[in-house]
Amino acid sequence: MGDPNGVGPEVLLKILKDGQAQQLCSIEVVGQPSVLDYYRDQLNLAVKNVQITPIEASDFHPHPGRIGREAGDIAMKSVALAVDMCLDGRADAMVTCPISKEAISLAGHHFPGHTEYIADRTKSEHYQMMMVSDHLRVGLVSGHVPLNRVGEEVTREAIREALDIMVASLHRDFGLQSPHIAVLGLNPHAGDGGVLGREEADVLLPEILQFRKKGIRVEGSFPADGFFGSGNWKSVDAILAMYHDQGQIAIKLMGFERGVTIAGGLPIPVATPAHGTAFDIAGQKRANVSATQQAFDLLVRMAKTHLVDQESSQ
Amino acid sequence: MGDPNGVGPEVLLKILKDGQAQQLCSIEVVGQPSVLDYYRDQLNLAVKNVQITPIEASDFHPHPGRIGREAGDIAMKSVALAVDMCLDGRADAMVTCPISKEAISLAGHHFPGHTEYIADRTKSEHYQMMMVSDHLRVGLVSGHVPLNRVGEEVTREAIREALDIMVASLHRDFGLQSPHIAVLGLNPHAGDGGVLGREEADVLLPEILQFRKKGIRVEGSFPADGFFGSGNWKSVDAILAMYHDQGQIAIKLMGFERGVTIAGGLPIPVATPAHGTAFDIAGQKRANVSATQQAFDLLVRMAKTHLVDQESSQ
Repeated sequence: MGDPNGVGPEVLLKILKDGQAQQLCSIEVVGQPSVLDYYRDQLNLAVKNVQITPIEASDFHPHPGRIGREAGDIAMKSVALAVDMCLDGRADAMVTCPISKEAISLAGHHFPGHTEYIADRTKSEHYQMMMVSDHLRVGLVSGHVPLNRVGEEVTREAIREALDIMVASLHRDFGLQSPHIAVLGLNPHAGDGGVLGREEADVLLPEILQFRKKGIRVEGSFPADGFFGSGNWKSVDAILAMYHDQGQIAIKLMGFERGVTIAGGLPIPVATPAHGTAFDIAGQKRANVSATQQAFDLLVRMAKTHLVDQESSQ
Repeated sequence: MGDPNGVGPEVLLKILKDGQAQQLCSIEVVGQPSVLDYYRDQLNLAVKNVQITPIEASDFHPHPGRIGREAGDIAMKSVALAVDMCLDGRADAMVTCPISKEAISLAGHHFPGHTEYIADRTKSEHYQMMMVSDHLRVGLVSGHVPLNRVGEEVTREAIREALDIMVASLHRDFGLQSPHIAVLGLNPHAGDGGVLGREEADVLLPEILQFRKKGIRVEGSFPADGFFGSGNWKSVDAILAMYHDQGQIAIKLMGFERGVTIAGGLPIPVATPAHGTAFDIAGQKRANVSATQQAFDLLVRMAKTHLVDQESSQ
């Protein structure tokens, strides 16, 4: 359900009311019934027969737009319960509505986001956030870390692992047999021949060449601004960005409303709308459902492939 | 003229042939006559009456697309001579066609770009690169530095100075009396309340508040991806980005062909097309002139204001 004070509950109600997603899968909402009731009444979103699994917590009265400790606690407990359900087979996949990192931190949960939490719960050391819109797929080498720490996360091991996960995810989740991947530079102008940084030559290029030796179509590194600006991204299946804003600015400019983040490399298929809690419009019936709708569509496809994989490996 | 092996000479020939820019100003090309002759012949771009001020160097035969030491040397000597001409009154402003930082470095000129060179020549400690497209204006706090060094450049002093220059430039160069400015966060999610970095709270906010106290409309800091993705940039006159790719990815996605970089705070009005040398299409008559055309348009306006300022201060 996401943060009870954000747009998550409203988006879920709209999706349930619309009914399209239920034609693909059965939906179990995880969170506080009192929260759904609040938005159902306030926003006049009558929905019948909502399947809900409540978390253990008292009734909570939402305050749309507020960053709150209790709201953060409910958001994280909902994620935790949904993970339980996926791990013990009660669910096949999870859509996570937006949470506030500040709110969950107030509640004493020190995870930068649900992806990191789920990775921790499932003991997944190797995973990768990938943003998917109508037009492009972007993976990140470093995720929710301060900009000052990005440099130390961009190592040869991290690049190799990110490309491995990306190739596997494009194959498994998107059915691409011979994916074509572009790698972006860390530094401005991709280091401009070493004048603006050495990572492109010392870290990125050697790993790119290793993949090419194996016959995998990996190219780069490219200056990020020119790569996006020139339209070269249209010719590849996925882009590996070095850090959060480098990838997110581009994908949000090119399809904000339908952007979805998935986590490649986790044992549970997880997808989340790329937008945040949108506290500024929470409780106003203005939230757009396209991204969450897209998250359901993607997950159904991913979950089916995961199930096939499991069956064929048994 | 920019790098003789890049698209600069071709773009200049096309602009001179078109003739629009000359209706606004008189154009003196600074560089090697042999280079213009080469592209004029190869690309069949007949242009009469080109005014050219040659640099001191032997005849040079271009190799379109090659990163070369001699080409880098010619590019930097052209910039140097153009600066001389502006400083001694032979010219009022300069358009700089794209140079290759790698090529000028091979030639022993250790500047990350012409802006830094011109700042050095004119002893300008306080200046700011600002990118201008049809739709938005973006200033950068840190410019051509490796990503690892961005953090140390984002200080309270740097923010204050960047906002000062931006306010002055919006006033002087664009005629905005009460400009409205948005500041982007350094970290993902603008630090998300401190969970993903402290610079937003410790560095950006105190300076933003200082400007607001003075009645200047400065807002932020905003998460960069959401700010661009949500369209909020439409409501401001300019955006202060923290580092190169954060601003450049957005502006190039929103108007690559007409993007121009200007340098606020320099005594010489300088503008350059936002695209690079485009070595991959150099010498093929495929270079787009829109950005350079826009650079001429902007500079004519800037140069007129600078002249008025000089006259009124004498």
